[in-house]
Amino acid sequence: MASPDQTAETARAMLDAFAKADVMAAECPSRALLQHLTSRWGVLVMAALATGTHRFAQLRRRIGGVSERMLSQTLQQLEGDGFVHRHDYGEVPPRVEYTLTPLGHEAAGHILSLVGWLEDSLPALLAAKAERAAIATPARTAPASA
Amino acid sequence: MASPDQTAETARAMLDAFAKADVMAAECPSRALLQHLTSRWGVLVMAALATGTHRFAQLRRRIGGVSERMLSQTLQQLEGDGFVHRHDYGEVPPRVEYTLTPLGHEAAGHILSLVGWLEDSLPALLAAKAERAAIATPARTAPASA
Repeated sequence: MASPDQTAETARAMLDAFAKADVMAAECPSRALLQHLTSRWGVLVMAALATGTHRFAQLRRRIGGVSERMLSQTLQQLEGDGFVHRHDYGEVPPRVEYTLTPLGHEAAGHILSLVGWLEDSLPALLAAKAERAAIATPARTAPASA
Repeated sequence: MASPDQTAETARAMLDAFAKADVMAAECPSRALLQHLTSRWGVLVMAALATGTHRFAQLRRRIGGVSERMLSQTLQQLEGDGFVHRHDYGEVPPRVEYTLTPLGHEAAGHILSLVGWLEDSLPALLAAKAERAAIATPARTAPASA
């Protein structure tokens, strides 16, 4: 039988495992939050809102290719997670503004650094891709044999 | 008619716009790369590979909930983008290892800082969510009126 000390240690380890978030664990609540932040449109909405408060139509213009339905769904998800605050002025015609919450600002900072790196690295990424394609298909540049 | 100087300036502005990546533009190639890096499984594969070289089965065990098919598709996508290098030792039984490329390591660094922040902030995010839920449904905690 385990001693009281051993039991206490096991209990502590269990609590720690539960308290420490782990996105690699399918059942950890951090997994869903990560997926919302990095969804196709979520990542772009967060990046756009990092530059300041936007109205719905402004966001739609800023984010190329987003549909009204997808933008609306994405904003609802990010609002539900507490990353985005929706302010309805209750006016007619309706005036609704979207802003990052303090936690949303923190998340957006990390997203912006990924996006900024990607934009800056695009030439290097495209060059590396072209080089791999050239290596993979040497036959196309060699003279045709008889 | 525009002067040669004006024409030159317009041409320069057009080239700059083309050369400068912008994830907000639907047609910019950075958009697809961002989506691969932040896809449901891509973000987790990048985070897992940031800890070192993995074989396929190791990655599958590490990332809770990923199917063989989705992991395989995700790895192919990240390999095509130049973030992941696939090394096939040509042995029987097959031995194939996945490693981040130098550019993949840079990307993974940004992804890890987002994931790390999210895991650390999960208690705060869940607490804020519980608080919003309590404010949204005050009737449930108030005594029932006759």
